[in-house]
Amino acid sequence: MGVVLYGFWRSLATYRVRVALNLKKISYEERSIDIVRGQQFDELFSQINPQHVLPVLIHDGKRITQSLAILEYINDIWPDPPLIPMHAVERAAVRALSLITIADTHPLIVPRTRKYIGENHERGEDSQLIWARHWLDLGSEAIEDYLTGADSSADLYACGNAITIADIALASHVVGVELFGADLSIAPTLKKITDRCFLNPAFSGAHPLKQSGAPCQPQ
Amino acid sequence: MGVVLYGFWRSLATYRVRVALNLKKISYEERSIDIVRGQQFDELFSQINPQHVLPVLIHDGKRITQSLAILEYINDIWPDPPLIPMHAVERAAVRALSLITIADTHPLIVPRTRKYIGENHERGEDSQLIWARHWLDLGSEAIEDYLTGADSSADLYACGNAITIADIALASHVVGVELFGADLSIAPTLKKITDRCFLNPAFSGAHPLKQSGAPCQPQ
Repeated sequence: MGVVLYGFWRSLATYRVRVALNLKKISYEERSIDIVRGQQFDELFSQINPQHVLPVLIHDGKRITQSLAILEYINDIWPDPPLIPMHAVERAAVRALSLITIADTHPLIVPRTRKYIGENHERGEDSQLIWARHWLDLGSEAIEDYLTGADSSADLYACGNAITIADIALASHVVGVELFGADLSIAPTLKKITDRCFLNPAFSGAHPLKQSGAPCQPQ
Repeated sequence: MGVVLYGFWRSLATYRVRVALNLKKISYEERSIDIVRGQQFDELFSQINPQHVLPVLIHDGKRITQSLAILEYINDIWPDPPLIPMHAVERAAVRALSLITIADTHPLIVPRTRKYIGENHERGEDSQLIWARHWLDLGSEAIEDYLTGADSSADLYACGNAITIADIALASHVVGVELFGADLSIAPTLKKITDRCFLNPAFSGAHPLKQSGAPCQPQ
């Protein structure tokens, strides 16, 4: 069996894995689990991932979960081109930047969190959008501060002149900013770097709106 | 200058770094930034970390942020004893388990998130506690499912018979469960493994309630 990716068109975590597989030139089959309709709780997927979350990478009979763990796994298994530098300080910077979006921001805007906000608070649907934009903006500010800070090695890409998993993470953040209509003008360095990424077919081909099941307009 | 850790007694992310440094037997100086009183926005700390978040590790003139990136850095710099296994599948399991708490759970219960919930929704202080317990319970369930699932390598510890960063992450989750009065009875395997960790002085000495500034009772 080849590489299988359980994902969903608009899942930003799935997007990250698609980009990494594309950059490594690994062919894979994507199987869609509609997390808006609740397919992650169906019996089929519950057996694949009892945590009911996407994405899941199936490789060599093993199931790998959590997008950052999958990115690291992909880099461990297929080292060329490297998406994580060799030097400890540079590795830490790549991971720290990635975690500003993968840990500090994205878990706050996934469907299960927005659903809770929408169901438990007075402003309903509106509160979901206000909530998502608030945390996306805070994430953009934090990323911009990092990229323009004294320790930054940002150049063509987030950490130097080669693409790393930090660029993948930042691109997924910007796709989220677009999908939710948050404000990217507060993060011009982030915009410049991810604009360069989006010119790369590995990134552009992985975009949520280009996947099967996606609407013509952003949701 | 030796190793400096900017942290706060009750910060679960700081706790993770304390445990890792203890396990590696690295001596360090902890400097407290009171994130409840807002010291993370003071000029002094804003220069150290413009993202205003803890923890920050200072080593060899470099600033490392984000707890998981710091744990990986510590393991890169001081490899003995290893806190991440060598095999790619095992590494992925260690990282995935860590991310269930570091990414999926903890960012939802940090002060900035609870503050937003408390300020923007009708139930005020109560809503913060209900919110925190909800996500901690969901995290405990997801961790328990992982530890008892078909692919699990849980034994004495989360991934086999040696301590890894997954144990550090799970211990920080359980400390959060205790501090917020969430329900650990739903995760007996998690409890068994972390009970073993808490017997280890590297874990017990790092506990929030044993740090300078902590109250006698959980907050």
